[in-house]
Amino acid sequence: MTQSYAKSSLEIPALPEGYQIRRINADDYERGALETLKTLTTVGKISKEEFTELINTWDKNPEIYHTLLVLNPSGKVAAIGSIIVESKLIHKCGKVGHIEDIAVNRNEQGKKLGLTLIRRLINIGAEAGCYKVILDCDPANELFYVKCGLSRTGVEMQFRF
Amino acid sequence: MTQSYAKSSLEIPALPEGYQIRRINADDYERGALETLKTLTTVGKISKEEFTELINTWDKNPEIYHTLLVLNPSGKVAAIGSIIVESKLIHKCGKVGHIEDIAVNRNEQGKKLGLTLIRRLINIGAEAGCYKVILDCDPANELFYVKCGLSRTGVEMQFRF
Repeated sequence: MTQSYAKSSLEIPALPEGYQIRRINADDYERGALETLKTLTTVGKISKEEFTELINTWDKNPEIYHTLLVLNPSGKVAAIGSIIVESKLIHKCGKVGHIEDIAVNRNEQGKKLGLTLIRRLINIGAEAGCYKVILDCDPANELFYVKCGLSRTGVEMQFRF
Repeated sequence: MTQSYAKSSLEIPALPEGYQIRRINADDYERGALETLKTLTTVGKISKEEFTELINTWDKNPEIYHTLLVLNPSGKVAAIGSIIVESKLIHKCGKVGHIEDIAVNRNEQGKKLGLTLIRRLINIGAEAGCYKVILDCDPANELFYVKCGLSRTGVEMQFRF
């Protein structure tokens, strides 16, 4: 795995001065994790207790759930994104990383935070031994993901309840 | 959740006489689970120990991993498919089901086993409280998934190691 990771590891652009990237924790409720996610889609009203419960679920399965935050110099959440590592039978009990819910706060765009985040998530997939990382997106966002190193491979189908 | 499930529950076609559908277990190694998956893609050489280890990983996370098998009257695996239930922050700590690795054995096609399997997996997603179920496929298979009740929603992007 180490060799494969070294070979595939992607260059990660430097963050602007004073920014940092790390795994999410329950205290990030106050740092604006939900506000940043609202740039992407509907989040709804989530209490601190519900937030903490979900982080606990993720932390109980650290090999599966990886959510990263970019924090700005004021300690506020500037970007957020996740990779879910799935263990499969195919490809000799291979693993696939699913990148999900990438959001960059409206006030923090144009700083390559999204690119940095995606590449860090891809490298987490490599470290976990994935043979590929995938994500689903609107065709309008395809070019951004091409810049991140991904390429189009199929169509996403959905069933909504 | 119960009400939402009842509303969204999909009709499941009856299996042919003598066929059954159930969750995978370690003994299915001898029943041809891997041979059926080979209809879909590369599986490689997997030992009974490796197979059992993966099933144990899945069983340790029963809220996340759900793999179903259709068995024929001889007890051989006729079809296999999975749904991974992901817990998110967006949509008020919502859940999304990811359908993965659907395969119908070459000798068992034309019996609507794939349709039955997909609808059972979608209903597992509903029971788990998912607000949607998604899957990625080759555009050539889109019509089959439309017959199963899904519709196109985006593009799948990948990064291969």
